[in-house]
Amino acid sequence: MQLSSKVLENAVMQFSKLPGIGKRTALRLVLHLIDEPQEKVNLLAESIKTLKTDVKICTKCFNIADAALCNVCLNSSRKHEIICVVETIRDVIAIESTQQYNGSYHVLGGVISPLDGIGPNDIKINELIERIKAEPIEELIFALNPNIQSDTTSFYIQKNLPVLPKKITTIARGIAFGGELEYADEMTLGKSIMHRVAVTNL
Amino acid sequence: MQLSSKVLENAVMQFSKLPGIGKRTALRLVLHLIDEPQEKVNLLAESIKTLKTDVKICTKCFNIADAALCNVCLNSSRKHEIICVVETIRDVIAIESTQQYNGSYHVLGGVISPLDGIGPNDIKINELIERIKAEPIEELIFALNPNIQSDTTSFYIQKNLPVLPKKITTIARGIAFGGELEYADEMTLGKSIMHRVAVTNL
Repeated sequence: MQLSSKVLENAVMQFSKLPGIGKRTALRLVLHLIDEPQEKVNLLAESIKTLKTDVKICTKCFNIADAALCNVCLNSSRKHEIICVVETIRDVIAIESTQQYNGSYHVLGGVISPLDGIGPNDIKINELIERIKAEPIEELIFALNPNIQSDTTSFYIQKNLPVLPKKITTIARGIAFGGELEYADEMTLGKSIMHRVAVTNL
Repeated sequence: MQLSSKVLENAVMQFSKLPGIGKRTALRLVLHLIDEPQEKVNLLAESIKTLKTDVKICTKCFNIADAALCNVCLNSSRKHEIICVVETIRDVIAIESTQQYNGSYHVLGGVISPLDGIGPNDIKINELIERIKAEPIEELIFALNPNIQSDTTSFYIQKNLPVLPKKITTIARGIAFGGELEYADEMTLGKSIMHRVAVTNL
């Protein structure tokens, strides 16, 4: 792509480094910004700049935070004796969006994956174990993606806990709302029959 | 979407104002930036900030420029007696990418469209007429998108020129390379037969 301005070319190059943004999309975004008023463009630039300086990681649960602790950990109306173990910050956001969970989180920042060179010490497992040792935990929920690495991770955590919490659960697998039985894979359909729920419990 | 950080929420909001970027994509971009080193994030922020201050519009052809005139207008090896009239800066970039054109441009910044309230004075038509009056023009090429508004615009320009340039042309319409005759619309196929080219001219 031949651009007649070095400034434009630089901005397009910077934008196209973002995931899923190609050169054409980058150019569209940059040309859009050129047409916007200065204040709006500055707002975007500032919000990007402050990301690295002002966004902190919660020292307790490793969620994104504005201070030392995140909004979930600071919220006294939430049940801190329930910990939901997730892989990424994105998972916290997804669960929070459902408005169905009122406990706390623990973001591992990955799962154990020997093939990728990720061992138990590369993710926040020790911090989780220390946390469970330090405070009384009623329930530990594993909300990990269904794969072998996640199974290994949850198994490793359970093996390394000196005392197991009263309840250890995992999120339900089954047919999604809007999903069709006919097209579901056998694994999912099998699990959803095995773990069928009494109609009154719905 | 519930986010546990105001800084994050603000950045997502700013990103999702960009065209074609929804909340989910914005969140993905922002979480990616949080994982990037500070210098890289600053480079992006800076390149956005300088867009409005350092990108100029060429005073002659209204293309994007780093100085008062754009690289095309400043380039003495280009044929300035040929003017290619386009609608947007994007069109200049597209034509430049072909490396098949060595003349100058004139970016109208739109086309006459009474339904959208865009009249001849809202786009750079007078500037084009003044330009043609001031310098000797050999050829005026209309590289506009094929629609009624563009036809109106090119008709208006020709009517308002005191002296017509020696040559007035429009870009060829026809079957695209890789296109199939069978699936071409009648209008395009009709034009491409009407304006058939001698094989030696290809």
